[in-house]
Amino acid sequence: MRSGLALLASFLAALAAPVVAAPLQGFRPDRTEGQLALERRFDAGLDRADYAAWIEDMSAEPNHVGSPHNRRNAERTLAQFQEWGWEARIETFHVLYPTPLELRLELVAPTAFTARLHEPPVPGDRTSGRTADALPPYNVYGADGDVTAELVYVNYGMPDDYRELERRGIDVRGRIVIVRYGGGWRGLKPKLAHERGAVGCLIYSDPRDDGYGAGDTYPAGGFRPADGVQRGSVLDMPVYPGDPLTPGRGATEHAARLPLAEAPTVLRIPVMPISYGDAQPLLAALGGPVAPADWRGGLPLTYHLGPGPAKARMVIRSDWSLKPIHNVIARLPGAGQPDQWVLRGNHRDAWVFGAWDPLSGHAAMMAEAKALGALVRAGWRPRRTIVYASWDAEEPGLVGSTEWAEEHADELRRKAVAYVNSDTNTRGFLRAGGSPSLQVLVAEAAGAVRDPQLPMSALERLRAKLLIDGERKGATDEQRAVARFAATEPTVPLVPLGSGTDFTAFLDHVGIPVLSLEYGGEDQVAGCYHSAYDSFDHYRRFGDPGSHYGVALSQTIGRVVLRLADADVPPFTYAIMADTVGGYITELRTLVDGMREKTDRANRLVASGAFASAADPAEAYVPPPLEGPVPFLDFAPLGSAAERLQASARACDAALARALEAGLPAGAAAQDELAELLRGAELALTDPAGLPGRPWYRHMIYAPGLQTGYGVKTVPGLREAIEERRWDDAERYARIVAERLSAYADRLDQVTRLLTGVPPTA
Amino acid sequence: MRSGLALLASFLAALAAPVVAAPLQGFRPDRTEGQLALERRFDAGLDRADYAAWIEDMSAEPNHVGSPHNRRNAERTLAQFQEWGWEARIETFHVLYPTPLELRLELVAPTAFTARLHEPPVPGDRTSGRTADALPPYNVYGADGDVTAELVYVNYGMPDDYRELERRGIDVRGRIVIVRYGGGWRGLKPKLAHERGAVGCLIYSDPRDDGYGAGDTYPAGGFRPADGVQRGSVLDMPVYPGDPLTPGRGATEHAARLPLAEAPTVLRIPVMPISYGDAQPLLAALGGPVAPADWRGGLPLTYHLGPGPAKARMVIRSDWSLKPIHNVIARLPGAGQPDQWVLRGNHRDAWVFGAWDPLSGHAAMMAEAKALGALVRAGWRPRRTIVYASWDAEEPGLVGSTEWAEEHADELRRKAVAYVNSDTNTRGFLRAGGSPSLQVLVAEAAGAVRDPQLPMSALERLRAKLLIDGERKGATDEQRAVARFAATEPTVPLVPLGSGTDFTAFLDHVGIPVLSLEYGGEDQVAGCYHSAYDSFDHYRRFGDPGSHYGVALSQTIGRVVLRLADADVPPFTYAIMADTVGGYITELRTLVDGMREKTDRANRLVASGAFASAADPAEAYVPPPLEGPVPFLDFAPLGSAAERLQASARACDAALARALEAGLPAGAAAQDELAELLRGAELALTDPAGLPGRPWYRHMIYAPGLQTGYGVKTVPGLREAIEERRWDDAERYARIVAERLSAYADRLDQVTRLLTGVPPTA
Repeated sequence: MRSGLALLASFLAALAAPVVAAPLQGFRPDRTEGQLALERRFDAGLDRADYAAWIEDMSAEPNHVGSPHNRRNAERTLAQFQEWGWEARIETFHVLYPTPLELRLELVAPTAFTARLHEPPVPGDRTSGRTADALPPYNVYGADGDVTAELVYVNYGMPDDYRELERRGIDVRGRIVIVRYGGGWRGLKPKLAHERGAVGCLIYSDPRDDGYGAGDTYPAGGFRPADGVQRGSVLDMPVYPGDPLTPGRGATEHAARLPLAEAPTVLRIPVMPISYGDAQPLLAALGGPVAPADWRGGLPLTYHLGPGPAKARMVIRSDWSLKPIHNVIARLPGAGQPDQWVLRGNHRDAWVFGAWDPLSGHAAMMAEAKALGALVRAGWRPRRTIVYASWDAEEPGLVGSTEWAEEHADELRRKAVAYVNSDTNTRGFLRAGGSPSLQVLVAEAAGAVRDPQLPMSALERLRAKLLIDGERKGATDEQRAVARFAATEPTVPLVPLGSGTDFTAFLDHVGIPVLSLEYGGEDQVAGCYHSAYDSFDHYRRFGDPGSHYGVALSQTIGRVVLRLADADVPPFTYAIMADTVGGYITELRTLVDGMREKTDRANRLVASGAFASAADPAEAYVPPPLEGPVPFLDFAPLGSAAERLQASARACDAALARALEAGLPAGAAAQDELAELLRGAELALTDPAGLPGRPWYRHMIYAPGLQTGYGVKTVPGLREAIEERRWDDAERYARIVAERLSAYADRLDQVTRLLTGVPPTA
Repeated sequence: MRSGLALLASFLAALAAPVVAAPLQGFRPDRTEGQLALERRFDAGLDRADYAAWIEDMSAEPNHVGSPHNRRNAERTLAQFQEWGWEARIETFHVLYPTPLELRLELVAPTAFTARLHEPPVPGDRTSGRTADALPPYNVYGADGDVTAELVYVNYGMPDDYRELERRGIDVRGRIVIVRYGGGWRGLKPKLAHERGAVGCLIYSDPRDDGYGAGDTYPAGGFRPADGVQRGSVLDMPVYPGDPLTPGRGATEHAARLPLAEAPTVLRIPVMPISYGDAQPLLAALGGPVAPADWRGGLPLTYHLGPGPAKARMVIRSDWSLKPIHNVIARLPGAGQPDQWVLRGNHRDAWVFGAWDPLSGHAAMMAEAKALGALVRAGWRPRRTIVYASWDAEEPGLVGSTEWAEEHADELRRKAVAYVNSDTNTRGFLRAGGSPSLQVLVAEAAGAVRDPQLPMSALERLRAKLLIDGERKGATDEQRAVARFAATEPTVPLVPLGSGTDFTAFLDHVGIPVLSLEYGGEDQVAGCYHSAYDSFDHYRRFGDPGSHYGVALSQTIGRVVLRLADADVPPFTYAIMADTVGGYITELRTLVDGMREKTDRANRLVASGAFASAADPAEAYVPPPLEGPVPFLDFAPLGSAAERLQASARACDAALARALEAGLPAGAAAQDELAELLRGAELALTDPAGLPGRPWYRHMIYAPGLQTGYGVKTVPGLREAIEERRWDDAERYARIVAERLSAYADRLDQVTRLLTGVPPTA
């Protein structure tokens, strides 16, 4: 115990030590105090009363793409920016956005039932009755159709689920699959069903995951009631997000467009989201084998797989015309380096009212804009240009941000320092994701923001949570690794980003560093996700009562933006980036070795007949197929490149720190050259040829997974090749990634050389 | 892949190789063929028609302790043994067995509801209407009482669940706990509730674990319907099983008895088992915090913890008189070594009809008895004495077998070779537990029994299952270790035994090797467990259609009994026993090291305040307490003793194998001495002082856990001391176990010396 106590003492000492090291990252020591004073003035410009007022006003009517109230909110946002002294304008694109004309779902056998497909008003929720002008619950970019077929229950509808069905000799050809939300991105469910021959897809919210099994339902609590429906996009975003007809270019009025029939991201079967109230009679009517234990949800029935005797009819007919969308873009021009842009955005469109998603994040962004405007009015000018964006059409597929980023891609590659995103925001803990090169910046900013509930910084509260999460029974390896890091390092790991919101085009297609910053976790908002119950009345009870975390988000992102804009050099640090990438590569090596061992073991079991021998002869059972062998991949060049990057990054960080101490190189030209070297460094990690089958995705370290949808795949070209056993692609991408890491290291070496005159120790 | 294929080839070769090594364990090579011929004649004496006929007849009326039909079944069993040529008699004991006179349960606030507490008839189940003479659903050995109090929901009611409640600032003092079945032995639930100040305990069957969430409910499928209730004992069996008034001695008519008030194994609060139909209104009426995610069951409601506003009244009044119980004991005297006894038993009493539990196992036992009788009639005499027992009063607390074993303990320690138990039996895989010294015997027997469904032996089917279970996602470390063993060794690991059925007194109190052998896993019987729906109509549909696995169990246990009875020397092998015990000790060392590390980490987190910082300030939260330090225990003597045992065991096994090859020592006296040395060897692992606080439990390697009830704790004195942080006890039991292992090694060395004339290499 003596050693335990000693460790404890040192741990407590570490906790008590100041986490925000002075000087601030990217600032000369003598500028730190001025910057902190500026941030105090920024905080004073945030008015807690604004948040609820703006959210209530903007969520008063349906806000879907093309709705009058969404257009009105764009005008209002524009006026606010202008009132606060920003240069602002609306940029309009014209995009494919189908809207339903007819939706019908019936159980036609063995009994008859017509689905409600409607969210009725809820007592105490003032807007829940105002749905006359709302779109009905639907999945945008599903196909039109009128299909009648037997149902099959496929759990979450993910690849492993189909493998389980195959083991039981069940296939979905010519059938309608009914799957529950969860386990992977919504859009994969109908895509995978279609690839396997299904003719339709129903996605329901199971009450165990998202209803009374998760907590008290609305209006008693915040969770999804029996008639609540999760709308959402099923655009094939892992191929490319944004307008399906204009991949890689802005959907301006006269842009060249694909014919609809050739748009690869539009689904080919009808798909419909339904409530658990509507799903229950369908699931109860299923026969066939009982579903595997972990496929069973919270409805009071025995879950069966089918196929049939339940048979359903789905009818979907839509208006497939182009619709205009409206981004509001606002600028504060930089006084020192106007061609270095710091970007920050949040979307404005919603599925219905959208008090939480997205207006809670949008309000925080607008509060920042107001406070920045006040600083400008008081005479402050940012060193770099600040660009704020209120995106339209995020919900159907990140359309507003993607079209804008595509339209301005070249300029962004030349000018963007970083893009900072938020989307939703609630009471709880900081959720920070993004480029590890910004990890110090985020930790410093969050360390300077006080948690609204407890006497500590937002950073320290997050650190406590990460430490506890890593200690919990059932903690993942990842959670334990994060806890180990957080216990000893002054920063906390940024979550690697996949997709799911508007940072996507900036990170994955343009290739600049991004951050995703929000608060949450102490809320009950998930139960209104993409439903008409995502209302102001819901949000003020279950989201962020009192708007305290709205203010905290503005304070956090405000600091990040101010420091990105005003730092003497762009405030990147590279050692954490290099270590993180090195960690991914070690992990991939372990993955391949594990796959090889597991494949050998599984093949022996298959060949021995053990699967058939262990199966119940009274039930249908198909043993798994033999898998091809897992070769030994040559990781040496990749490992060497990662090691060299770690050395270059450390040298660069050290040179930068010394240069800031010493007052930077003399002369504006040298300083501009340095700033530009730092600004564009991460572009070295992109490859214009992109990922296999999806050239839109250019970043070689981060992408959403083709089989996960929103979930990230790090080193995606290599990782997905390994996971899918495409060994030639694996060899190829191991080489490509090694080259990209070397190019990145070259760039960091240029910085070191510029600052020290000598090349770094490699 | 080349190396994978090579491994695969050798694996397939291993599978194809004969698993049953000739000669049979314990037999001289020249006697193997005769033994196999005898076993074929035994098989011919098994009549598949008997099983269903006997089960149907014996389950025609309620069979609880003291019921007329249970008495009639005893007489019938006696008559059958006698008809088949066995010496048989009934041995009667007089035991405390309370039966309910009045049972009442009401929700009195916030709404009124009276629980049904009754299992209604089910269409198609012919006996389900014959419950007029049955006892109502109850938990035997709970206290009488009339209590009204607020309810608190405590999940499974296990120690970890109370720790979770403490974290939320909720205690159960003066309240009635409502807990679900599962997660640990039933009897611990009210015991732990009482220790924490609860005044009553309701135990219900949650439909997720044991109802529609598990599968289709009866009569559509075999799982528990809404009104089904799991009866069962709540006797504090981890202290001692059997009659609460006569610990350690037979409850003969004039035995000395404790006063009821001093009987430590009788509970002090009322406890009642209820259906999920009755539980639903109670749980729906609970307020307070939402239960943790893994506490939520399958009812269509949000599970809350309470306390209140739900308030319930429980009334229990019982008849506390002594009741007579009747064991039927039958013998086939041995011709060669009549004072070496091979014992085999199965209980006969049921909670209601008991077609599955216990009559399925009882029928297999009686079929063996009939076939053995036929062999005797044809002129065969066993070398050793065979004793078969039809136990009464297992259900209230292993009472029949325990009283008999206590009454005959001295004789059993002098004469018993081994005890073989079964209880229930269904379609599926062999489930084999017991002393590792019998692992080869079991593997050889199961290797000679053909699986009724697939063209392979019962052993090979079990091996396939163990290999697949070890490979499944979510496999436990234990399952993976078992799979590794099963992939390379000719035997499969026997499951270590805790308690839960009639082997307990023989293993834990007397101290002789036992086996528990049953088939199961491809059935739907668990849903009728301890309910009136455990009927012949249920069993023939969902238990063992066609009685094929009844025959397989008789074939398996018949071979085990015949080989134990007829082998030239008792068929033990010791290396597996020694390796297994060595494995337990390694595991304990890892356990202590893991606890030390975990304690240090947790204490640092507690001291840093991280728990409070990570908790939601809007909810009640109490951080966990600091734990005392985990010292470094001296495992050296224990490790040395285990190593010496491994060497002694290998030498002994080798000497026995050579001696059997060579024809054994000449002379009956030497052979008797050898047989006796082998027979009593495992008594060396017992300590008459027993375990801390429970001297009845004498075995130093196996016991049911004080905090698990039925679940085994290996090396229990040491393991429980570690788990409960009683470090002085841990030091003490490390020494005691080391001594016992040395004594066991001494005994094996005596065998080696007898056979070789020289002491073994140590």
